[in-house]
Amino acid sequence: MGGFFGVASKTDCTTDVFYGTDYHSHLGTMRGGLAVIGDAGPIRFIHDITNAQFRSKFEHDISRMKGAYGIGIISDYEDQPLIIGSHLGTYAIVTVGVIQNLDALTQVAYGKRTTHFSEMSGGRINPTELVATLINRESSFVKGLRSAQEQIQGSCSILLLTPEGLYAARDRLGRTPIVIGSKPGAHAVAMESSAFPNLGYEISRFLGPGEIVKVTGSRVQQMQAPGREMQVCSFLWVYYGYPSSTYENINVEVARNRCGAALARRDQSQVDLVAGIPDSGTSHAIGYANEAGVPFGRPFVKYTPTWPRSFMPQVQDHRDLIARMKLIPVKEMISGQRLLFCEDSIVRGTQLQDIIQRLYDYGAREVHMRPACPPLIYGCKFLNFSRSRSVMDLAGRRAIKELTGKDKPADKELKQYAQPCSGKHCAMVERIRKRLKLTTLQYQQLPDLVEAIGLPKEKLCTYCWDGAE
Amino acid sequence: MGGFFGVASKTDCTTDVFYGTDYHSHLGTMRGGLAVIGDAGPIRFIHDITNAQFRSKFEHDISRMKGAYGIGIISDYEDQPLIIGSHLGTYAIVTVGVIQNLDALTQVAYGKRTTHFSEMSGGRINPTELVATLINRESSFVKGLRSAQEQIQGSCSILLLTPEGLYAARDRLGRTPIVIGSKPGAHAVAMESSAFPNLGYEISRFLGPGEIVKVTGSRVQQMQAPGREMQVCSFLWVYYGYPSSTYENINVEVARNRCGAALARRDQSQVDLVAGIPDSGTSHAIGYANEAGVPFGRPFVKYTPTWPRSFMPQVQDHRDLIARMKLIPVKEMISGQRLLFCEDSIVRGTQLQDIIQRLYDYGAREVHMRPACPPLIYGCKFLNFSRSRSVMDLAGRRAIKELTGKDKPADKELKQYAQPCSGKHCAMVERIRKRLKLTTLQYQQLPDLVEAIGLPKEKLCTYCWDGAE
Amino acid sequence: MGGFFGVASKTDCTTDVFYGTDYHSHLGTMRGGLAVIGDAGPIRFIHDITNAQFRSKFEHDISRMKGAYGIGIISDYEDQPLIIGSHLGTYAIVTVGVIQNLDALTQVAYGKRTTHFSEMSGGRINPTELVATLINRESSFVKGLRSAQEQIQGSCSILLLTPEGLYAARDRLGRTPIVIGSKPGAHAVAMESSAFPNLGYEISRFLGPGEIVKVTGSRVQQMQAPGREMQVCSFLWVYYGYPSSTYENINVEVARNRCGAALARRDQSQVDLVAGIPDSGTSHAIGYANEAGVPFGRPFVKYTPTWPRSFMPQVQDHRDLIARMKLIPVKEMISGQRLLFCEDSIVRGTQLQDIIQRLYDYGAREVHMRPACPPLIYGCKFLNFSRSRSVMDLAGRRAIKELTGKDKPADKELKQYAQPCSGKHCAMVERIRKRLKLTTLQYQQLPDLVEAIGLPKEKLCTYCWDGAE
Amino acid sequence: MGGFFGVASKTDCTTDVFYGTDYHSHLGTMRGGLAVIGDAGPIRFIHDITNAQFRSKFEHDISRMKGAYGIGIISDYEDQPLIIGSHLGTYAIVTVGVIQNLDALTQVAYGKRTTHFSEMSGGRINPTELVATLINRESSFVKGLRSAQEQIQGSCSILLLTPEGLYAARDRLGRTPIVIGSKPGAHAVAMESSAFPNLGYEISRFLGPGEIVKVTGSRVQQMQAPGREMQVCSFLWVYYGYPSSTYENINVEVARNRCGAALARRDQSQVDLVAGIPDSGTSHAIGYANEAGVPFGRPFVKYTPTWPRSFMPQVQDHRDLIARMKLIPVKEMISGQRLLFCEDSIVRGTQLQDIIQRLYDYGAREVHMRPACPPLIYGCKFLNFSRSRSVMDLAGRRAIKELTGKDKPADKELKQYAQPCSGKHCAMVERIRKRLKLTTLQYQQLPDLVEAIGLPKEKLCTYCWDGAE
Repeated sequence: MGGFFGVASKTDCTTDVFYGTDYHSHLGTMRGGLAVIGDAGPIRFIHDITNAQFRSKFEHDISRMKGAYGIGIISDYEDQPLIIGSHLGTYAIVTVGVIQNLDALTQVAYGKRTTHFSEMSGGRINPTELVATLINRESSFVKGLRSAQEQIQGSCSILLLTPEGLYAARDRLGRTPIVIGSKPGAHAVAMESSAFPNLGYEISRFLGPGEIVKVTGSRVQQMQAPGREMQVCSFLWVYYGYPSSTYENINVEVARNRCGAALARRDQSQVDLVAGIPDSGTSHAIGYANEAGVPFGRPFVKYTPTWPRSFMPQVQDHRDLIARMKLIPVKEMISGQRLLFCEDSIVRGTQLQDIIQRLYDYGAREVHMRPACPPLIYGCKFLNFSRSRSVMDLAGRRAIKELTGKDKPADKELKQYAQPCSGKHCAMVERIRKRLKLTTLQYQQLPDLVEAIGLPKEKLCTYCWDGAE
Repeated sequence: MGGFFGVASKTDCTTDVFYGTDYHSHLGTMRGGLAVIGDAGPIRFIHDITNAQFRSKFEHDISRMKGAYGIGIISDYEDQPLIIGSHLGTYAIVTVGVIQNLDALTQVAYGKRTTHFSEMSGGRINPTELVATLINRESSFVKGLRSAQEQIQGSCSILLLTPEGLYAARDRLGRTPIVIGSKPGAHAVAMESSAFPNLGYEISRFLGPGEIVKVTGSRVQQMQAPGREMQVCSFLWVYYGYPSSTYENINVEVARNRCGAALARRDQSQVDLVAGIPDSGTSHAIGYANEAGVPFGRPFVKYTPTWPRSFMPQVQDHRDLIARMKLIPVKEMISGQRLLFCEDSIVRGTQLQDIIQRLYDYGAREVHMRPACPPLIYGCKFLNFSRSRSVMDLAGRRAIKELTGKDKPADKELKQYAQPCSGKHCAMVERIRKRLKLTTLQYQQLPDLVEAIGLPKEKLCTYCWDGAE
Repeated sequence: MGGFFGVASKTDCTTDVFYGTDYHSHLGTMRGGLAVIGDAGPIRFIHDITNAQFRSKFEHDISRMKGAYGIGIISDYEDQPLIIGSHLGTYAIVTVGVIQNLDALTQVAYGKRTTHFSEMSGGRINPTELVATLINRESSFVKGLRSAQEQIQGSCSILLLTPEGLYAARDRLGRTPIVIGSKPGAHAVAMESSAFPNLGYEISRFLGPGEIVKVTGSRVQQMQAPGREMQVCSFLWVYYGYPSSTYENINVEVARNRCGAALARRDQSQVDLVAGIPDSGTSHAIGYANEAGVPFGRPFVKYTPTWPRSFMPQVQDHRDLIARMKLIPVKEMISGQRLLFCEDSIVRGTQLQDIIQRLYDYGAREVHMRPACPPLIYGCKFLNFSRSRSVMDLAGRRAIKELTGKDKPADKELKQYAQPCSGKHCAMVERIRKRLKLTTLQYQQLPDLVEAIGLPKEKLCTYCWDGAE
Repeated sequence: MGGFFGVASKTDCTTDVFYGTDYHSHLGTMRGGLAVIGDAGPIRFIHDITNAQFRSKFEHDISRMKGAYGIGIISDYEDQPLIIGSHLGTYAIVTVGVIQNLDALTQVAYGKRTTHFSEMSGGRINPTELVATLINRESSFVKGLRSAQEQIQGSCSILLLTPEGLYAARDRLGRTPIVIGSKPGAHAVAMESSAFPNLGYEISRFLGPGEIVKVTGSRVQQMQAPGREMQVCSFLWVYYGYPSSTYENINVEVARNRCGAALARRDQSQVDLVAGIPDSGTSHAIGYANEAGVPFGRPFVKYTPTWPRSFMPQVQDHRDLIARMKLIPVKEMISGQRLLFCEDSIVRGTQLQDIIQRLYDYGAREVHMRPACPPLIYGCKFLNFSRSRSVMDLAGRRAIKELTGKDKPADKELKQYAQPCSGKHCAMVERIRKRLKLTTLQYQQLPDLVEAIGLPKEKLCTYCWDGAE
């Protein structure tokens, strides 16, 4: 998915940009980048962070950076920030999102002959460079940002760094969040508000969908008012976001505790212990345990000193190995116990299958699973969560295929499977339960999830569960 | 403190030694090392791990290592393993512990003229090389290990790697643990049994104090029976050990849950939320919340993706910065709340002071603290926990000094302060509470801690709390 | 200056491109780059080579490169090769030369709004990216290359790598050389033919000025015939080229030997030893010694094992230190001797001043200097030899300023100083001789130099000596 | 072979030790090391220099070093300098040479039980650590150094760094050279005097065989007078030494010029060009050309910018590749020519065979070879020149085997082959000539070589040519 962070300060911003970007590390695994603009023009560094943490890669660079305005990015694939020379001046730019019509926009650009792309890797165009070409066609940065948002299908939030100020543009439907933080002498722009407190910023306000602001050390100026329509990603609260972050005034940890509580209220199971599948299940499980009055505990402990990532590498083999190595079982809390686990969502279920088997190997009497959201049935096309994964790998779709024999059932049929308490839904869940060898399996119902998050349904994107666009 | 891991296998042991040693990373921050013995003689690598994780430093080395027997170490200061050529043959050796009479033993060695030390850094002798000279003076490895244990004051657990097998010697009073794990075709020796399950080993048995075994791929042979006296470090269960580890048949997570429960049973406070100061306080807090029936929650979340260490660097400034940066507050769970925190032990209290202040800044109504052990009053002299810290920095000693005006009160007076419920004890605790601005502060009482761990008092070292030797 | 090398092969070309590019290392000190095009699209690596040799930086990369066609570059400043996506397809490109009208061409590009630049450093545009935009405006690569050559003022030789073949375009007036080498199954394109013999290539032909060819594994196809006018840089034979290279059918070492012989023929000095100021003076000195029948010797030996560069860093301080450290005097060959040195050209004379002083310190009786070319009076504007040096630093210009008091004398006056045997010329040379404390100083006369090279005067660029354009 | 450099200064010596050691880089290819002794005790760094130049590996370390006394080493195999703690105090030590009785001395050490070795690699003892144990057995450094020299068979020159001064001990028979250099406020100790001039030192005096001195910032004190017997290695002047170095008051370049001249005086060949096989043959060839009055030239040019090493890696395959890649032929100086080459010594002849074949491929009419020394017949046992090479690989021994059928002829027979102008000698040379396809081959005669060097025969080791001990 990726995440960005920017600062406009009255003094040097480098340290804040460095730490603030680092606090977005859970949002990407491949590339990191920093740029500042100072008297000597833009200074930029980009590193591969596949095998190392962001800070260790950039800690030597920052002594060579100096400037009042700066941006940073944790990027999934492409090099960022880009430094772009154009008729608008020289600027740095980062983007987060998915451009569904990338190929069509590229062909339009090539039709002009005068446009080229130089940030290629393996023949693929860097989407951020494409966004820059859309911006450059207009006569000002704001017009360019507005025009780019209009042309892009999918989502694209942008930070654009100029000597005159830092522009932040949230994607047109607000699928990804942008939040403004302030402290004396500086303003910051982030995707994760959890980057703020340790750097001294307080949340000032959340940008609305499509809103554009220009930020300097002294003020935040609205350049484009927000649109009315919003489709913010629900999965941020369920899984992607950091527990200490807040979007649209709703904190992630609190929302997760409510998710767990909602699960508990619909549940009658008699168990000895409630636990979360680390990391993301933990907050849900705490909410469940507190609501149900059942002891919370940790039958698995994560080895954080050296297996720190919460995100996974893109190669499935490594992902499975790491998933296994980083969790250490506590036999004494498993043997002979009736265990109930909360999990964010069963995506494919393969790692979970291994975990459940190990629980039985260690003597668990019962293993109950309570995912914090409904079964995933549609692959996300608005953010790049699933670029390397086929929609057919989803545990729900796999079960549907076993039941219907179809890879791609009609949308109407899919919608029936998505309907909680329907016969089709129950059959699908039962298939998944059997495959995972669970004692019981109960998913969150979508209305409960929406209520736990606390926004009106029409402002939330729930596409991956109910196909609603 | 440091930690080691060894394997004797019928096939190549490199991968197991690599991952098994990595699982001891929380026990040291400075140096890591690996050695295997194969047909080509010993192969060894040592790296500085101050700024990088163990695995990233050694992942290229292991392709160049091959051998059935191997050892690894996470070391606090000195280079290890050493490869020693001697009349007994060539071997590799690692040690964990503190040699109090290092200088006296060195002078004895120099008296012979024929002994030198070459593993020096900044003019200081590498204690492991000294241990090797003690072993070499005898006619066999077992006699040498026994003689070394007799001469060393303090503690010293040893792994000694030879082409014929792997010797493991637990320190004379069993202050540090050694556990044997087994799987078909291989045996492993570890300090932390949490290294076993993900590598396929099951706990086979715990070495007794001073016990020596020789391990090969096919068997574990006792070379020296354990002594009767034991003084295993209580702090392993309170703080140092990994939650998924087990010593003397007692699991750490379970013992910590019992600690928290014991605190709850003596407590009448009305609070909204129970939480742990991450990481080590978490297990204690879970035990407290479950016993008290009060909701458990996370007003602070640790940023594990890039601030993974649970241990701290030796430079205090960096330690404080990191302590602050790695914990992110969740304002929504703090504001207006009555919070009760469990913590392992208030060592100096300076970081805690900062955390507590931030809680009030975020609107906490009350902040109660429940350390899982009694106040630390004596500095450890058996393991190198406190090499860089003065005993006078301890929160307890500082309070005593304020009350008595004395840096070093008579031992009798100190013992009065250590006595729970005594007037002097209460005055000391009140001083600490006031300094930290806590609503209430209640320490664990030593008998409760001993009971929570579950070993007889005489088998536990409780020196840092009551000065008992 | 920079140098490039490309291969089109029927099999994988990576190794040849790697070693062939390395053999251009004397032409640049800052950046190196490699790109191949294979089934997986273009693969590119760029490294800073300021503090390391080209091979050591790329030796790990080449295992990840595979493709039949490839290019490499030693670049003075900018990142190269660039990978460009355009309506013509995706290609890689490297250039060598100086674009004098870079700013004007950039403004034209910005006027179109649809053109941007993303290969910026410190706000400066990468000239190779500009060249790419010029090419992209046309409907084919050949038309684009032709159009680029027409628009560029200065010089620009280009390699352009596409899946269909490798285009090589020599700059319009042939200031820099391009030579084609062939072996069974492969063709190579180089600036230095010295890259050929150890890789098995034989010189096939030299491209003419402005000539464009398309090279595949099976043939070399002329796409644009050479122009009639040529202005190849004379300084290649005097200083820049490697002794084992050949341009326009004339070998460098042989031409330098002829230069030395020409100096000897005009010389009557009685000396004990003839020597070259290493490295470039050596070949001239051998020619002198052989012609004059005076012993050749080495009063200075270069410490090649660790001071290998023949080129200099751009920072003058470091340049002077390195110049001093890499030459070791042999006192036994200096003390009491009458020494005659050949040097390529006295550029600024500061390092030479130091060397000459050391010769006297070691007891030299006489020190005679014979530069292989006339005094440098005009700064080069066609290749970037002197980017970091002011024309006023030139020893000749400095002398002229002392004599005339003028920084910029009229061109007519400058031409008088350039005239050998004229009174003004002799006064200038005498000034330089005195400053350097030389016993005698005699420069090569331009007609002798032209004859030693062996091309008609009108085909050689002699601008830096006589200002002729 | 290896080389060392040490400084005792009144101020910080780090820079001098760094550059001075670097100037010994041609003497080793594997390991480099530096140590200084300052107020903070000894500080040491060791790096692998197999794939990088000495300076690039240590340039970051030197900012962390500070001390008035320091030593450095280029080492062929083992880690050096060692830091040794002993009853004499803590010191650093480096050695150069070969200890033939290493195993016997080790067994003696083990007999004492109290001696161990910890600087092992692959089970092998580090000879320098053994030397330290010999020194430590005595009651003072000087007694220890003297005792070590008496016990060691082979050769061993030593630098020993203490807080009180720097001890230098030349090997008992002076096989390797040690020279003292002085400048105001500092004295330096080197193997290669070529390290002195660029650091401001002048040669003060050469140590005699077995001589021991103690050097401080203010004086050089003789602690042990030199022995009468000397056996300095002749090959230093022929091949190993740097041209700008001087041993026993005889400069290398000058001696090599005399070698070439001696070859010329015995030669009647009519040739067009005299050349050296780079690097070491160059000085011999210059001497030949000057004496014979035949033009000197360079039909091969070495690509020094990136193939800088004059020494070779230990793996033969790589050696051959590098030997080929670093020399570039100049076809114009080869085709149709009668060429005469000087070479230091034909060791195995395999690389030479390849070079000669290439000369014919490039059209050479005749190829004559003139080695600067007689055929190598005995493998060196006093310095580790040939550790990885069998004596049977020597071109001379191979020819003898072909003629006699014997791997190890009787010493008497070998001596007959060593006798110049004898029938056996001529037959051996003719065999070598034929194998190498040379037009003519004439070796230097030993008396001519001895005269060219300029020391009495009895002071030179000529073992590799005539077997004289």
